[in-house]
Amino acid sequence: MARRRQLYEGKAKILFEGPEPGTLVQYFKDDATAGNGAKTGIITGKGVLNNRISEHLMLRLQEIGIPTHFIRRINMREQLVKEVEIIPLEVVVRNIAAGSISKRFGIPEGQRLPRPIVEFYYKNDELGDPLVSEDHIIAFGWACAHDMEDITGMAMRVNDFLCGLFSGIGIQLVDFKLEFGRCWEGEEMRIVLADEISPDNCRLWDTQTNEKLDKDRFRRDLGNVKEAYQEVARRMGILPENGAGGDMRGPETVQ
Amino acid sequence: MARRRQLYEGKAKILFEGPEPGTLVQYFKDDATAGNGAKTGIITGKGVLNNRISEHLMLRLQEIGIPTHFIRRINMREQLVKEVEIIPLEVVVRNIAAGSISKRFGIPEGQRLPRPIVEFYYKNDELGDPLVSEDHIIAFGWACAHDMEDITGMAMRVNDFLCGLFSGIGIQLVDFKLEFGRCWEGEEMRIVLADEISPDNCRLWDTQTNEKLDKDRFRRDLGNVKEAYQEVARRMGILPENGAGGDMRGPETVQ
Repeated sequence: MARRRQLYEGKAKILFEGPEPGTLVQYFKDDATAGNGAKTGIITGKGVLNNRISEHLMLRLQEIGIPTHFIRRINMREQLVKEVEIIPLEVVVRNIAAGSISKRFGIPEGQRLPRPIVEFYYKNDELGDPLVSEDHIIAFGWACAHDMEDITGMAMRVNDFLCGLFSGIGIQLVDFKLEFGRCWEGEEMRIVLADEISPDNCRLWDTQTNEKLDKDRFRRDLGNVKEAYQEVARRMGILPENGAGGDMRGPETVQ
Repeated sequence: MARRRQLYEGKAKILFEGPEPGTLVQYFKDDATAGNGAKTGIITGKGVLNNRISEHLMLRLQEIGIPTHFIRRINMREQLVKEVEIIPLEVVVRNIAAGSISKRFGIPEGQRLPRPIVEFYYKNDELGDPLVSEDHIIAFGWACAHDMEDITGMAMRVNDFLCGLFSGIGIQLVDFKLEFGRCWEGEEMRIVLADEISPDNCRLWDTQTNEKLDKDRFRRDLGNVKEAYQEVARRMGILPENGAGGDMRGPETVQ
């Protein structure tokens, strides 16, 4: 099969031109980075797991009426998505203090926040993805006030739904990062959830033990990174056919 | 005269118990600090100048209907103010990029922003006064959504008025920091402008030459710090009687 034209390579994914106009192929790599690229590594099989986990979560979110860029999974490492214009914001929703919010406000890691908090970071590696306010976002034209209402509303709904979903399988959703994009359907523009939702961009703690089941295992050198991602997929009931422990790199274009 | 009981000492001011319940005496020091206390110094006469400049600006703002804590100036270094419960936010309004916003977003210093931007910093020296979003402020209970509407509305009005006032005397108002407090009048609470407005917490550039007439002269070791503050007071038409160049420490309780 002829390789499609590559449009963009990020830290954990590659975007290729899709088979039809207005579509892209999103390819999930095994590459892992942390600290804005300061630390890099390979988590063998991560791409396969994240492709599956993100497919599952995007489909469930579509069922409750959250528009997403997801169309269908193509194979173990690839999914077909709508082409969108990414809004240059990392939208972070936090339920429990961990990571940067603990440091910023001196809140012990693990302390439940008074209520869920939505944060926005300007997606710009050179500037270190700085925290921004809605006023910055609107003044610099990254999104308008109406976009921000849509984004904040969707982020809160996604949080409610995912808290429930993970709670049902013994996992606390500590925080997560979303990205949104603008999608044109004729003259109509709407904002849709884009990127991925996976243990790469969620903090997931076992409800009983507080064991971390996410990329913090890589960031903090806790070991058993792949096993943690597999455990999340297993509890979600979607462990890939050959994913129980074998080499999940597999042939990349097999359906 | 008996010294009043000291309630609080900050970097540039001391608050004493006032002569009547619900009042405080705000004393202006000559101490200057920068970089969250990393750099300290004395700018002889600064307290006298800031007492005058802040008095003048607070009175003008009261005239356009901005409630403030200011009651009256007592002497060269002291003013009588209403006792308020300070909201732990530094409210920064920016018209032109300078300082931290230039660094955060890679915007050249001196570039006019697309529109005025209001920023909030959590007033906490230990944490380095971190930038916060309205969602942080509301979630952590530092202020409620209604308070934030009042504060943002007042900050924008203060900006419009001060831009005009300084424009009229050949000065560009680049940015400034405000603080607000809660003031109870019987059962009624209202939010009032507190603290001070002076070259200590404004960036003021000469319109013609872009010469800095504010605390950046101290922060960046540009020299002639006192002379810059005096120039601002002179253009405002309020240079203290003995302030043209002499020792302005003076007797501290002289009317």
